[in-house]
Amino acid sequence: MAPTTTTTLNAFDPGQPTHAHSDDDSSSCPFCHIATTYSPYDPADPPVASSPHLDPDAGSPEPTTFVVLSTPLLIAFLDIMPLSPGHVLLCPRSHRRKLTDATPAEARELGRYLRVLSAAVGAATGVPDWNVVQNNGAAAAQVVPHMHFHIIPRPELRSRGAERFTSTMFGRGQREELDEDEAAPLAESIRQAIAEVIGVEEAGKAKL
Amino acid sequence: MAPTTTTTLNAFDPGQPTHAHSDDDSSSCPFCHIATTYSPYDPADPPVASSPHLDPDAGSPEPTTFVVLSTPLLIAFLDIMPLSPGHVLLCPRSHRRKLTDATPAEARELGRYLRVLSAAVGAATGVPDWNVVQNNGAAAAQVVPHMHFHIIPRPELRSRGAERFTSTMFGRGQREELDEDEAAPLAESIRQAIAEVIGVEEAGKAKL
Repeated sequence: MAPTTTTTLNAFDPGQPTHAHSDDDSSSCPFCHIATTYSPYDPADPPVASSPHLDPDAGSPEPTTFVVLSTPLLIAFLDIMPLSPGHVLLCPRSHRRKLTDATPAEARELGRYLRVLSAAVGAATGVPDWNVVQNNGAAAAQVVPHMHFHIIPRPELRSRGAERFTSTMFGRGQREELDEDEAAPLAESIRQAIAEVIGVEEAGKAKL
Repeated sequence: MAPTTTTTLNAFDPGQPTHAHSDDDSSSCPFCHIATTYSPYDPADPPVASSPHLDPDAGSPEPTTFVVLSTPLLIAFLDIMPLSPGHVLLCPRSHRRKLTDATPAEARELGRYLRVLSAAVGAATGVPDWNVVQNNGAAAAQVVPHMHFHIIPRPELRSRGAERFTSTMFGRGQREELDEDEAAPLAESIRQAIAEVIGVEEAGKAKL
């Protein structure tokens, strides 16, 4: 019954039913696996893609995780079944089932980095509009039981396309797998844009 | 062309098209109007419903705003076209068009209070599952151009009902107006629950 690491990682997809892990079992949680695999780095000075922070397991057959932010409290990475290019997930490193299970300190950091990531994803994709979505519990379409915010760029679509997009956002309809060749430079652009946004924040503080 | 206060207030409804105000014009923004009408109070010790903080304009014919949180940086209130009882909006007091226009300090406070409000809305409604949604720009279904998070309790629904709910969440389909007789005690419960959650936070800090 114990899922292999590979099948556990596939459980990312918010459009698929979960399997084999109980809601409060962090040992089989795919996001906990990512959090323990990728160690924190300074988001104002991101490492190169080949660094052990971003590629700890060079040559492993596991699906690559494209980390874009990795702090002591939080981690963010590209969704492996993106609704649009730049679809990012942001979560606490520690296993928290719902937003209310996060600590007050984690909640503040999530708020801070939702803004930073939103700006960075917009800069990296060139798409000016986006949704922030966070689902708590099965009735609200939560699948991976480790709380996470989605940041989802919204390209302009005609009415039918927009409806299909919205419905897919909550777990129905077709999603495509992340293209790894496109993902690598995109993740790099997002990490660089995050560093720039933090630079602007710091400059703002210095002026006060 | 200048909208009256009443028609401006009707522009709350995220399911309806906006009218007469330009995106960056805070003078006709319904959320700025609420922010200037309702002064801050200590969320750990909320005033009674008849206080000038919550009922500044007793007897006015304007649609009532049911404020549930009012701090120097943020304000939260019941959505006037709720998707479910307890549907709350949380926004910065100051006019910020998108999440990226919020200051870093506002972004942290939004994160902190998303957690507090989520816990309080769950306690007041008894509904354990909920969505957090925040839309930026027209392509992402943002209507009121003053950024706001939705906290939306998700009662258990059968499949068709759940699809309709999701589609309505992004601006299509039928929504009903807030029932003011039900809203008053609900807002009171949420304010009390917020005070309790903050009490627990403070007790946690005291222990450290």
